[in-house]
This record gives sequence, C-alpha cells and structure tokens, in this order.
Amino acid sequence: MSNNHPDANIHPEATGPAKATAKAHFAPCDLQFYSGWFCPFAQRVWIALEEKGIQYQYIEVNPYHKPKSLLDLNPRGLVPTLKWKDKPVYESSVLIQFLEEAYPHHSPKLMPEDPYLRWKVRVWTDFITTRIVPGFVRFLGAQDEKLLEEQREEFLGHLKEIAKAMDPEGPFFLGRDFGAVDVMLAPWAMRFWAFDHFKKGGLGVPDKGKGGEDEEVWERWRKWVEAVKERRSVKETMSEREHYLPVYQRYADDKAQSQLAKALRAGKAVP
Amino acid sequence: MSNNHPDANIHPEATGPAKATAKAHFAPCDLQFYSGWFCPFAQRVWIALEEKGIQYQYIEVNPYHKPKSLLDLNPRGLVPTLKWKDKPVYESSVLIQFLEEAYPHHSPKLMPEDPYLRWKVRVWTDFITTRIVPGFVRFLGAQDEKLLEEQREEFLGHLKEIAKAMDPEGPFFLGRDFGAVDVMLAPWAMRFWAFDHFKKGGLGVPDKGKGGEDEEVWERWRKWVEAVKERRSVKETMSEREHYLPVYQRYADDKAQSQLAKALRAGKAVP
Repeated sequence: MSNNHPDANIHPEATGPAKATAKAHFAPCDLQFYSGWFCPFAQRVWIALEEKGIQYQYIEVNPYHKPKSLLDLNPRGLVPTLKWKDKPVYESSVLIQFLEEAYPHHSPKLMPEDPYLRWKVRVWTDFITTRIVPGFVRFLGAQDEKLLEEQREEFLGHLKEIAKAMDPEGPFFLGRDFGAVDVMLAPWAMRFWAFDHFKKGGLGVPDKGKGGEDEEVWERWRKWVEAVKERRSVKETMSEREHYLPVYQRYADDKAQSQLAKALRAGKAVP
Repeated sequence: MSNNHPDANIHPEATGPAKATAKAHFAPCDLQFYSGWFCPFAQRVWIALEEKGIQYQYIEVNPYHKPKSLLDLNPRGLVPTLKWKDKPVYESSVLIQFLEEAYPHHSPKLMPEDPYLRWKVRVWTDFITTRIVPGFVRFLGAQDEKLLEEQREEFLGHLKEIAKAMDPEGPFFLGRDFGAVDVMLAPWAMRFWAFDHFKKGGLGVPDKGKGGEDEEVWERWRKWVEAVKERRSVKETMSEREHYLPVYQRYADDKAQSQLAKALRAGKAVP
C-alpha cells in the first residue's frame, strides 16, 4: 500500500448527511453497492437506490486501495459497482435503467412510460455523458486565462442547451416528477461550487434577472438547480464540503489521477 | 451548391441489394426514415426496421446537401433521423430501443426480457460507441507504419474483448437470436474489407486455426461475423462495394469530413 499516490489520502468515509445514509445501509444485504462517497458517478446510483427505497448494503471503497471483493467482481475495480444476484453490474449511465427494470415494483419510476419521452431521456443522458461531464472536467482543469474563458463559454452553452430541452414548467427535466435525467445530472450540479471556489470568474451562470437575452433559459436552469438541491435523495447522499475540497483541488490543478481525468487528458471518451 | 467539398460527389443513391430495399419503401408513410445509403449509423436503423417489419418511407439524404425537410426536423441535419408522429427521433445508439418501445407488437424483439441481459446489451452498446467505432476510424486513418501497428493492435483488442463477452454458443451476441448488439456492430463488421483494401497488413484477424493462444476467441468472432453476413436484414441494406470505395478512401487518407471524423481528429467523443 503506497502513499505516493496523491488521492491515496482521501478522506476514508462519508461525512455530513451522507454519513447517516451510509450508516443506515451498513448491514449485509443481497444487493451490495460498492461506492465512493466523493464520486459523482456513484452518487447517481445512490440517489436512485434511495429514491426507489431498494434495500442495499453500502460498501465504501477508496478506489486507490481497492478491496479484493470488488476486483473479483469487476476487474476494472470502478465504482459504482453493484453485486446483484451474485453478478457484477456497473456503469452509472446504464445503472438507472437497470434498477428500474430489476425492481419494477418500486416507486417512484425514474423512467417515463411514453416511448418518445424514454427516447428523450436516453438522448439527454448521452448529452450529459459526452458533453457536460467532459466539459466540467476541462473547465475545472483549465489553467491559463484564455483557455479558462473558452471552456467556461462552452460549458455554459451545454447548460443552456439542456435547460432549453427541459419541460417549460418543471421543476424537473420532464416536469413535476424527478427522473433519470435529473439523477444523472444532479451530482454534477451539486459540485458547481468548485468553479466559484477555484476559478477566477466562477461558474458564470448569471444571477436572477441578469441573464440578458438568455434570462428565460437561465431562469429555467436556476429553477431546476433549486429543486434538485432540495431533493431529499440528493441532499442525503452529500458529504461535507471541506472533504470534497482536496479532491477538486486536484481537478482544479489539472493533476487528478482518476480514470476520468486521465482519459480526458489523453483525448479519449469518458471511461 | 458547392462541389468543393470532397464528399459532395458521393454516389447519390443506394445500389446493389440496398437499392431494392429502398425502392420497396419509396411510398409516403407516416414513419419517415432519413438515411444515407453509405452511413453505418443509418444502416443500424435500417436493419432494425427491416428486422421488425415496421412500415417506413426511405428518404435518401446526401448529408452534404441536406434537404430543408430534414433540417426543419433536426437542425443538426444528421442521419439517421426518423420522423415519428411528426416529431424528430435520432441518434442510432438509442433508436433501436426506441423502435422496440414504439412498436411493441412487432417481432422479433431486439432487446431481451431479462434485466441483467438488458443491462449487458446497454454496456456493450456503449463499448461499441466509445471503443470500436472510434478505433475503426483511427485505425483506418492511421498513416505512418508505427501508428498503424498500434491502432491495429488496439482495435483487435477491442474485437477480442467483445467476442469474449458473447454467448459461447452463439452465433449472435446473446445466443441464437439476432439482437440489439448485433444491429449496432453489424454495419461496421460489413466494412472491415476496407482495412484489407487500404491498409498494409489488412484487418489482421487471424485465419481459422491461426489464432494461437487466442484461437478460441477468434473462432467465436469469426462465427459471429459469418452469421451476421448471412442475415437477410444486413445483406439487403448493403450497396455495391465500388460505391463505398471513394467514401472509405477519404477515411484511409485521414481526409474524411464527416462529423465523426472531425470530432475524432479534435480528440472529442463520437457526436
């Protein structure tokens, strides 16, 4: 076990509201959830499990000291991984649909019934994976001022694009009901403070009334953010900000060693 | 209308077996399928429509001279795009699931019933999108010999990985039944001759009995390829090879101007 790796000293467990949630799911259970308290991909699955009231065992993994039980299950050792009927199930972008289908009698439904809306959820899930997540990492990792400005503009363009695709009333992506697109995006929105903390000029979403010709789009975006921040499943899977700080400091310095950060530096897709 | 664009002189319509299929779907129909005869993404949707016996109108689009009716529907103007109940539906990676859900009484089913297998289909669909398709384009576009060798090795590694994930008996990905993963991958497999035609050393999949320690994996791969090549829906959506040649010549010269080629050159994800 080496301490040379910068992320090896990460705080070992969930804190704040997430601590109580993890503790409530400490007991062994058929469905095992290998997670990392700080990982936005894992938080998606955590939110979905909490929303649907599925019984699970929360297993905290430091991804830089991976337990053998996880590696036996999923050789890539990534979180989130579920052990379901003794089989590994992973990749947060498809796990929400998996939970819907594996637990069909649990409510609320996170996927709509209508084929067109189901298609829409999948298209915007892809948009989050291929545009918003890489944009987040590039924007936070941008070092010189010109690049920072470019990445901010591109990122805010992505946020406007998804805000325009939302149900006009909301507050959630498809309307009154919290669903899969909200689950996919919420963990990232809950980390937007990192731009204000680490980057000159901050995130750059205009304050209420200051959005100019885009004010209507930004108003819709702010409404979504407020609703998501108040969602119980989102709040109760968040840890204390001070413990996220060193994780995102490394992203802000463009020194993060996660699979995601390394893939994006190499010009590859989200792993 | 400019002829400066190298792809603007592309053959205007389907030829060979695909010509008869397009002709059989010339008549106006509620479901409109905007396609390009040479486009592997469009071929996925075409295969699915043919498999399921869904009524549709085939509309050939030269993507470099996009008709207004398509741009009105989908401002990005990409094929494949469906017009379904007067709404645009696009992105081949999610269209197969859309067709399953929008036409629930059509057989065969391209998605399995079991939640675990449905998860598996989605994970390997992602693998095709994020590994195999970009790998295909990089391998075909590799110019110097060292890079060509590296890209070939990486690409063959991806093929082995998906072959190992296949049902051991087959012949298709999940077993006896042709399904969504087969649909996603078939158009690419049907274009593998391009490596033999354009690249020194060719595709590099070993001949029968020549796979060494990987022979079992390659045998499974070859079985899949043979079964897919014989599938009616795949054969009848293919045009004559001579007309694909100039398209793939540009990929082989790393001069293709498709959205896909440009995104990959810029180090971005498949658009």
